[in-house]
Amino acid sequence: MKRIEDFKSIIDRYEIIFFDAFGVLKTHSGLVPGIERTFDYLQSQKKEYYIVTNDASRSPGQLAQSYHDKGLYAVTADRIISSGMLTKEYLDLKVNDGIVAYLGTEDSAHYLESAGLHTLPVRDINNTNIDKVNVLVFMDDEGFDWCQDLNKTVNLLRKRTIPAIVANTDYAYPVSKNDVGIAIGGIAGMVEAIVGKQFIRFGKPDSQMFMFAYDLIRDYRQISKKQIVMVGDTLQTDIIGGNKFGLDTVLVLTGNTQPADAENRISATGIVPTYICNSAVLGPDVLAF
Amino acid sequence: MKRIEDFKSIIDRYEIIFFDAFGVLKTHSGLVPGIERTFDYLQSQKKEYYIVTNDASRSPGQLAQSYHDKGLYAVTADRIISSGMLTKEYLDLKVNDGIVAYLGTEDSAHYLESAGLHTLPVRDINNTNIDKVNVLVFMDDEGFDWCQDLNKTVNLLRKRTIPAIVANTDYAYPVSKNDVGIAIGGIAGMVEAIVGKQFIRFGKPDSQMFMFAYDLIRDYRQISKKQIVMVGDTLQTDIIGGNKFGLDTVLVLTGNTQPADAENRISATGIVPTYICNSAVLGPDVLAF
Amino acid sequence: MKRIEDFKSIIDRYEIIFFDAFGVLKTHSGLVPGIERTFDYLQSQKKEYYIVTNDASRSPGQLAQSYHDKGLYAVTADRIISSGMLTKEYLDLKVNDGIVAYLGTEDSAHYLESAGLHTLPVRDINNTNIDKVNVLVFMDDEGFDWCQDLNKTVNLLRKRTIPAIVANTDYAYPVSKNDVGIAIGGIAGMVEAIVGKQFIRFGKPDSQMFMFAYDLIRDYRQISKKQIVMVGDTLQTDIIGGNKFGLDTVLVLTGNTQPADAENRISATGIVPTYICNSAVLGPDVLAF
Amino acid sequence: MKRIEDFKSIIDRYEIIFFDAFGVLKTHSGLVPGIERTFDYLQSQKKEYYIVTNDASRSPGQLAQSYHDKGLYAVTADRIISSGMLTKEYLDLKVNDGIVAYLGTEDSAHYLESAGLHTLPVRDINNTNIDKVNVLVFMDDEGFDWCQDLNKTVNLLRKRTIPAIVANTDYAYPVSKNDVGIAIGGIAGMVEAIVGKQFIRFGKPDSQMFMFAYDLIRDYRQISKKQIVMVGDTLQTDIIGGNKFGLDTVLVLTGNTQPADAENRISATGIVPTYICNSAVLGPDVLAF
Repeated sequence: MKRIEDFKSIIDRYEIIFFDAFGVLKTHSGLVPGIERTFDYLQSQKKEYYIVTNDASRSPGQLAQSYHDKGLYAVTADRIISSGMLTKEYLDLKVNDGIVAYLGTEDSAHYLESAGLHTLPVRDINNTNIDKVNVLVFMDDEGFDWCQDLNKTVNLLRKRTIPAIVANTDYAYPVSKNDVGIAIGGIAGMVEAIVGKQFIRFGKPDSQMFMFAYDLIRDYRQISKKQIVMVGDTLQTDIIGGNKFGLDTVLVLTGNTQPADAENRISATGIVPTYICNSAVLGPDVLAF
Repeated sequence: MKRIEDFKSIIDRYEIIFFDAFGVLKTHSGLVPGIERTFDYLQSQKKEYYIVTNDASRSPGQLAQSYHDKGLYAVTADRIISSGMLTKEYLDLKVNDGIVAYLGTEDSAHYLESAGLHTLPVRDINNTNIDKVNVLVFMDDEGFDWCQDLNKTVNLLRKRTIPAIVANTDYAYPVSKNDVGIAIGGIAGMVEAIVGKQFIRFGKPDSQMFMFAYDLIRDYRQISKKQIVMVGDTLQTDIIGGNKFGLDTVLVLTGNTQPADAENRISATGIVPTYICNSAVLGPDVLAF
Repeated sequence: MKRIEDFKSIIDRYEIIFFDAFGVLKTHSGLVPGIERTFDYLQSQKKEYYIVTNDASRSPGQLAQSYHDKGLYAVTADRIISSGMLTKEYLDLKVNDGIVAYLGTEDSAHYLESAGLHTLPVRDINNTNIDKVNVLVFMDDEGFDWCQDLNKTVNLLRKRTIPAIVANTDYAYPVSKNDVGIAIGGIAGMVEAIVGKQFIRFGKPDSQMFMFAYDLIRDYRQISKKQIVMVGDTLQTDIIGGNKFGLDTVLVLTGNTQPADAENRISATGIVPTYICNSAVLGPDVLAF
Repeated sequence: MKRIEDFKSIIDRYEIIFFDAFGVLKTHSGLVPGIERTFDYLQSQKKEYYIVTNDASRSPGQLAQSYHDKGLYAVTADRIISSGMLTKEYLDLKVNDGIVAYLGTEDSAHYLESAGLHTLPVRDINNTNIDKVNVLVFMDDEGFDWCQDLNKTVNLLRKRTIPAIVANTDYAYPVSKNDVGIAIGGIAGMVEAIVGKQFIRFGKPDSQMFMFAYDLIRDYRQISKKQIVMVGDTLQTDIIGGNKFGLDTVLVLTGNTQPADAENRISATGIVPTYICNSAVLGPDVLAF
């Protein structure tokens, strides 16, 4: 049986902390109680942190605002690495002209708009513009009519040989204590199976998420992977992704992995975190050092 | 290169012919021209035939009516074997009480109703009746709100340990010359991936479809599998399913498999029909024997 | 929590009992102690029984002998339904001439030999006979050189468009208290992924296994599926296969499913047996009725 | 139909060229004729190049030597990025002590040995050392007894909760004009399916391969992804991997993708290269600039 370790003693050993968002910093009912103390401590120790999150529903600025609205001011836009940012980088590098068709909210689309690129919801594709569509992006599970627009998406991909980008690999996300919602990654998986083509997926566990954060840091300082630790609640995304990228990893038990199951699931999946902690919250006495 | 053979010379060698429906007897624009001659010939020769079809949207009677409406009177309800009939047999044998929750039209649900079983569309599940739901059936892609009811379905299957039945395994079906629609089998695949449970799927290529027809025949006459040939347009359902059940098989080129692709697809999939024919239609001189 | 029920009270309700072999009648260390009492009781009650087993390593006669060698004489060849028998039926119905190439022991191949069919181990395929090979059968994990013959198999299937038959779908089987062996079904899965073709697989959970037994019974008596119960230790093969075929099912806890895990695994997989029993053994007082 | 473009005009537009090895620089029968002219030109233009290859069978030095032996001296060890190098980085970062068990040749293992790490072929694992095994690496398809050592590997992973690393994701590789060999990636896929655990896989199409090369370059110069082009013969590894990382891509027709199939396969897979060229060889007049 792996020992439950003290979160403070772990972060003391690293220079930079990567956090998953949902299940680590917040849950369906708001912030994880006491999580602001963790960020106070990190700032007092001049340690850096990034939120590495599968989310393409909004811009980093809007994501940061949602933390501020809850009272956590330490999470600023420049500290957020989202799968939406990788999607935006892909479009900037690889799509030079034409229309970016998308499934998602207007918010999610506006964030993508780059010089020369025009976004168009799938519902507005028709015979006059279909030949200008040069890429399709699955952004968010909201903002479209599932029946009508998913059927349209299947037929778009049968007619046009264009890349299909999935801006969030998750299959589901929690919406309340007991319920989940189907995420755009799950919907995209259905379309992929039907059209038989291979989509490009951005988001943990894929290393490109971690690499994006790592690159950002190296633009202003020297760092080794040994100085970074990834903190997450999900073995199949946060932990295996961090492990593969070469980072040490902390599994916390405030989200997808329940304390009673942790050991069984590690053993069943073969995904082994470097450490297990009850949560990413520091004890009340931590700041009294 | 496999030789294209004459359909009449093939059916002359068998006692009973199984036909797939879509792509063999009919297409998006109506009956395959001349197909009624095939049935005239079969009747004149006292050969029997069955339509073996992945369809749970309607009862056999309603399916037969749709052929009559197009002018093909030889397809009667007692000649149809549908995946919906297997679903009904499953409920009759395995579900003794409680509610059958379903995704599909009212038509598809009424067909299922058996002594003591009450059907309920997923949209009407609530806290007062969820504990009485003893099985969930994916019947048809129409008749429900995809976004709202699929999210509800995911959460139903997370809360209740009940069997989930997919009454049609197809992922898509043709709706016009160029377009397809997402079928309930594709939708069920997404839900299965999200909830991580194992569903029961009825429909070709699964042998149980062929067995159901075979059993029906043996109730009134002796027959060997050697005397039956399966005619279909799709390698991955009709042909591999028929082969596995031990039947000889005919691939026709009026549906999913194009004449130019047939050889390549046989070689790529390793699914080998006994014969290839242009269509299931007999030449104009056939009845002049 | 599902109630653990008394095995005797269950079999009293049915006319015919189907048993899985490994984990139900025997384990790596021999017969399940007391299992002969179950068969004594069945015989005293004039109930029928069949062993429905994923095994193609030997003929039914050889399989029966292995029970006699352990002291269980009630399991005779005519009571055994194996995936090897389905493979033999396939060859009899579908392969009329040429060579049956195989991976497995000589014993497993001899069983397959039918009028006009010549078997050949993959190792003996060469330029002079490769064009006569009309089917490839994965029979058993023993009897061939894995490295040399599996590479040969991959290239055979790339060169010849022939059906590939997997005579046992299992991925692994127990060889001692703690160890498993890789089964031919697992090996075949690797070859299938490499060549990208679709193989024909015989064995539970596929319904064709149950249908084969059901057909055999109906040759000499009338029976309804309601009068048969399937007893097995594995949710993913015995239980879901029996359920789908329309049989009631008993999960026993002497094999793959541990007592402590049963409830969790039923809930995680959504595969629900009709009953759960500790074992297929009757209490010592049973025969004292 | 996509236009076939001139390879020289393409490389003139980029600063750095990434090449796949097999099917681009060499085939089963040796170097692609004339490929050395491409490297002469690159050197004359002061352009940089890297070979990005799924290969863990040998060290970069040994891989380079194999090019020198064929007469291509431009491929030096410092120009090679192999999936074996990613495996070595993983071990350096993540495994601090204990034994690295491996499947592969001694050559492949020696390359991995890092300070403090001891390698051990799977065949030599026994009760006295199994508890010290902290990682398992699938290196190469040679150097071990498939039957004995793969069975041992399955049982090792059932007993010990340790990461399993696949140092080459490929399922097969060409061994002659018509034949392929099963690669260690295919073998690892079988073991993964049997033990039901999640392995860590290094190699294209995974972005970490491209990132490793990209990082290496940025250690000594500034570069943008827009200045790099990836040249490969395989849509499913080279092209989709390069695309996803944000690079422009060239599909060449000297390997896995045949000229007659290219358009069909792009359309069937939805994987779209930026350019298509007949080969990576420059015309004979190129150096006469």
